Amino acid sequence: MIDTKGTLIAIGGHEDKEGERVILSAVAERLRGGRLVVATVASKEPQEYIEAYRKAFGALGVQDIVELYVEDRAQSDDVELQDQIAGAAGLFFTGGNQNRIMSHIGDTPLAAEIQRLHARGGVIAGTSAGASVQSEVMMVSGGGAGSFRVGDIEMAPGLGLISGVIIDQHFAERGRIGRLLGAVAHNPHMLGIGIDEGTAIIVNGDQFTVIGRGGVTVVEADRATRSNIDEASQGCVLSIHDVVMHVLSTGDRFDLANRRPEAIKDN
Amino acid sequence: MIDTKGTLIAIGGHEDKEGERVILSAVAERLRGGRLVVATVASKEPQEYIEAYRKAFGALGVQDIVELYVEDRAQSDDVELQDQIAGAAGLFFTGGNQNRIMSHIGDTPLAAEIQRLHARGGVIAGTSAGASVQSEVMMVSGGGAGSFRVGDIEMAPGLGLISGVIIDQHFAERGRIGRLLGAVAHNPHMLGIGIDEGTAIIVNGDQFTVIGRGGVTVVEADRATRSNIDEASQGCVLSIHDVVMHVLSTGDRFDLANRRPEAIKDN
Repeated sequence: MIDTKGTLIAIGGHEDKEGERVILSAVAERLRGGRLVVATVASKEPQEYIEAYRKAFGALGVQDIVELYVEDRAQSDDVELQDQIAGAAGLFFTGGNQNRIMSHIGDTPLAAEIQRLHARGGVIAGTSAGASVQSEVMMVSGGGAGSFRVGDIEMAPGLGLISGVIIDQHFAERGRIGRLLGAVAHNPHMLGIGIDEGTAIIVNGDQFTVIGRGGVTVVEADRATRSNIDEASQGCVLSIHDVVMHVLSTGDRFDLANRRPEAIKDN
Repeated sequence: MIDTKGTLIAIGGHEDKEGERVILSAVAERLRGGRLVVATVASKEPQEYIEAYRKAFGALGVQDIVELYVEDRAQSDDVELQDQIAGAAGLFFTGGNQNRIMSHIGDTPLAAEIQRLHARGGVIAGTSAGASVQSEVMMVSGGGAGSFRVGDIEMAPGLGLISGVIIDQHFAERGRIGRLLGAVAHNPHMLGIGIDEGTAIIVNGDQFTVIGRGGVTVVEADRATRSNIDEASQGCVLSIHDVVMHVLSTGDRFDLANRRPEAIKDN
């Protein structure tokens, strides 16, 4: 894990923006009245995103909301944008394309400012692409419905706010267990975390808690006895034996250091 | 396991009916020139099914093909139909609705004749609904895309040609990992077997082999350390810890007695 005082909130997409808003409330309350930067950089058409989140967070009492958007990588050197983050209590990545986030702000002074915000105790939240991008290594694409085949996925560096895990989103809804298994077969030292829509993990230090209406699937291939991922030709169906799997739901906690779920609370 | 000399072939649906026909060939060659009964009883409109399979099996050299169809349960007492099975080397259940198979022939003299065919060394194959129906307890319905919720699935008795397992089909294609986990959470002594489309398991005694173009997922909740399936209210998302999971592909074998996969063959 990366040493930080901050909180990460990784959301599987389609969190409620009206009504109870369990997940957005969890973001809002952690701002303690401070500024929220809404980063719409994952999308080419940010207008709809910023409007929806301004409205949702506004209704939750967040008064200081600033949009972060860059048209290209050069803009990420803009000191004014960096200052906005420096003065914020939290940052929220909207959905879109995780590649776009990394190509526009990865390894720039803006990204460094976001890491500093997290390190000093801020909350970094993100939904869909904004969840995937939080980890050191991120899932980019691949593996639709159907049997998972060797070579089906593409991975890339993420923002590195959390290490040792690969986060996938829209998990149950898009039948992504195959690609998450493929990702941990390739990276057996990493924990695969698949987050359903309307569901989030809140990561503090080495522990995360599940909130929201769906499930979180954790897969661990560290003790897998056999996999064909290295020897199989491109296009072969993955074989992997002895994966450990947990499904967690709201209130469940998981210890990332020991890689163990904690007891389920009574319902 | 149930004591038998016969072979079961459970297919995840959409097996190739033209070209190489790996799975239908595996059925055909086990008939050794004997009669194949094609049971279309899972469907209300069997015509299309019987035509497709007559053509596919005919092209594979199966000459004696007889259709088995019953309009209602009473017809399952028909001695002529029983004799057709008594004189057969194998039986193939087409797709449709597994409930329809059980409501029409479950616990009838016809079902007993099918069990005898299997016991004396015949091959019983089935695709989709025809795969689900082979086990003692079968998955009937429930659990679409999305987080799996307690109460989402319906189970019912099957034909009992194999015990100790629950077979699901169209597995990766329909994102059914959630419902298979739900099934084994309810029945932790049973092994969950999810078969992708175009893929089959060939069961002989306590061992099965995977053939076809997709994967077979095996989940075991026998050693699960915790699940909320009993205590959670209807509609709660399933929590379950420490499920063991294997994904198998063509050529892989699994020992049902020890519940262990065998080493993956080199690709």
